[in-house]
Amino acid sequence: MEVRILRRLEAKNEADAAAVRDLLAAHNVRAINIMGSPGCGKTTLLERVLPRLQPRFRCGVLEGDLFTARDAERIAAIHVPVIQLETQGSCHLDAALVHRGVCELPLADLDYLFIENVGNLVCPANFDLGEAARLIVLSVTEGHDKPEKYPLLFARADAIVITKMDLLAHTNFDLPAAEADIRKFNTNAPIFHFDTQTDPGPLVDWLAG
Amino acid sequence: MEVRILRRLEAKNEADAAAVRDLLAAHNVRAINIMGSPGCGKTTLLERVLPRLQPRFRCGVLEGDLFTARDAERIAAIHVPVIQLETQGSCHLDAALVHRGVCELPLADLDYLFIENVGNLVCPANFDLGEAARLIVLSVTEGHDKPEKYPLLFARADAIVITKMDLLAHTNFDLPAAEADIRKFNTNAPIFHFDTQTDPGPLVDWLAG
Repeated sequence: MEVRILRRLEAKNEADAAAVRDLLAAHNVRAINIMGSPGCGKTTLLERVLPRLQPRFRCGVLEGDLFTARDAERIAAIHVPVIQLETQGSCHLDAALVHRGVCELPLADLDYLFIENVGNLVCPANFDLGEAARLIVLSVTEGHDKPEKYPLLFARADAIVITKMDLLAHTNFDLPAAEADIRKFNTNAPIFHFDTQTDPGPLVDWLAG
Repeated sequence: MEVRILRRLEAKNEADAAAVRDLLAAHNVRAINIMGSPGCGKTTLLERVLPRLQPRFRCGVLEGDLFTARDAERIAAIHVPVIQLETQGSCHLDAALVHRGVCELPLADLDYLFIENVGNLVCPANFDLGEAARLIVLSVTEGHDKPEKYPLLFARADAIVITKMDLLAHTNFDLPAAEADIRKFNTNAPIFHFDTQTDPGPLVDWLAG
């Protein structure tokens, strides 16, 4: 008689994440999981930061999306090795898909791996991808109420980047209120301000540190 | 010996959605499920549209969020009956929670029920809440690539509202490209343009029609 085994989805993901973590450690690659809303500026941030890191460090990227390879094409255009992970409708990356992506990258030639998660403030927070650090992106056009509404994501962040600062004057985003709310859940993570005109130096230094 | 029954989550939700639909039909209330990214302007849209509908129609609102009652407070401030549905970490509203909310509203005194879903472009698309129509909100600050990346949400829309049009000139959002992409998945739904200065008349007329 066949024995059927049902396993918690999270337990399966934890095992897959451990496998990713081991593989990256074996090649001395540091992985950063980047999370934030759809359109908050995750890919734009990579487009700005990667050219500044590349002279000193070798970087690779995994791009998570439900469909399309639009983001991977943007990263390939700046000559960084990239694999598109298409979740085919799933709302988050899981470690099994990341493991497949990692195996397609030239790990021996990399120092950093950036994993851009699916645009979503909820589900990705619950899935360990084997990363060393979590970077949360929040754009001022989303409103300052987001940290209080999505505390889990901000609580587990190793760094937070507030993007589209050039649009601040055109919004009612209350920057001190947003930062005070972030500090309710996360006392340590540095908070960076960012737009396409900002010097990405401090963020680059944090990533490289 | 105990018999254990495992039921698909979706089947449970379908039964709950049917119960919501029956209850609303019994009171002749039309429900509209509003979906879009975090910070795309769903609550702001309600703040603009409800005062225009209220003279002719009686409206109620269910506000979906993981945590906080911030959005419900904004709706209460414009004197519309509202219940906050706190999902406590879940990434979407389900019909069971909506059913509980509907039972707390004065259905006999309502013509329209607006259900503002959790800010998320993925998961809410898969959960029928017993609504009569689905309104999708996309802000220009999110980027014109969103319809292609999240086709399921746009395919099942009865109307689409492109918000924050006042910021269009400050972004690289390609409006014709976004609308052409929407039309790949949805040939019929009207597309409205909106910002806090726009006359909400055409959208109000569609809702009232």
